[in-house]
Amino acid sequence: MQKVNLAQKLSLFQEYCSPKIVGQVNDCLVKLTKFKGEFVWHHHEAEDELFLVVQGRLTIKLRDRDIHLEEGEFFVVPQGAEHKPVAKEEVHLLLIEPATTLNTGNVHNEMTIPEPERI
Amino acid sequence: MQKVNLAQKLSLFQEYCSPKIVGQVNDCLVKLTKFKGEFVWHHHEAEDELFLVVQGRLTIKLRDRDIHLEEGEFFVVPQGAEHKPVAKEEVHLLLIEPATTLNTGNVHNEMTIPEPERI
Repeated sequence: MQKVNLAQKLSLFQEYCSPKIVGQVNDCLVKLTKFKGEFVWHHHEAEDELFLVVQGRLTIKLRDRDIHLEEGEFFVVPQGAEHKPVAKEEVHLLLIEPATTLNTGNVHNEMTIPEPERI
Repeated sequence: MQKVNLAQKLSLFQEYCSPKIVGQVNDCLVKLTKFKGEFVWHHHEAEDELFLVVQGRLTIKLRDRDIHLEEGEFFVVPQGAEHKPVAKEEVHLLLIEPATTLNTGNVHNEMTIPEPERI
């Protein structure tokens, strides 16, 4: 039961595509991640996923359109929707998703983080 | 499936203690609220509640200590824990809590909002 300072937690790691757990609200985890580049196309069978931009810019590619997010903006990718996060420059994200969510969803590859670290 | 800009949504209302629903992640709702003053002591029997300060400052009084939150900081009040939010000046908050959560928890009074508006 400690408060969490987003900037302080984000200063604790530098690697991309490695979400860190910083909180839990019932079945939902709050994660922080840094990202740059192109993620894989994937979907989550039963889980919605919220992306809130803390710093930088993120594009979430959907099959029918692109969602462009700036600082202070969020988007919820609904369960089942294929999506591909893309960031030209480093972006810092707060994620909210059920504890069962795997970062690469239905795809298992070298980007998959089966057990995110708690920081 | 629209993106949400926190500042834009916060500009749509001015009243205090009237959380607005701006998103949903599975069973969890994302709400925005403005607040100033002293809320009632209450607890949520089965629901954790996350308070993230978007603008301003918030103190969450617990029975054994006070949690002081600045912009970019959050705290999760665990289920069952009595708490009382206090803000000397206007504060803008993002809340994450199960859809079943009532703002005043176990207390029912004139501050209770049984059906928060979606904006």
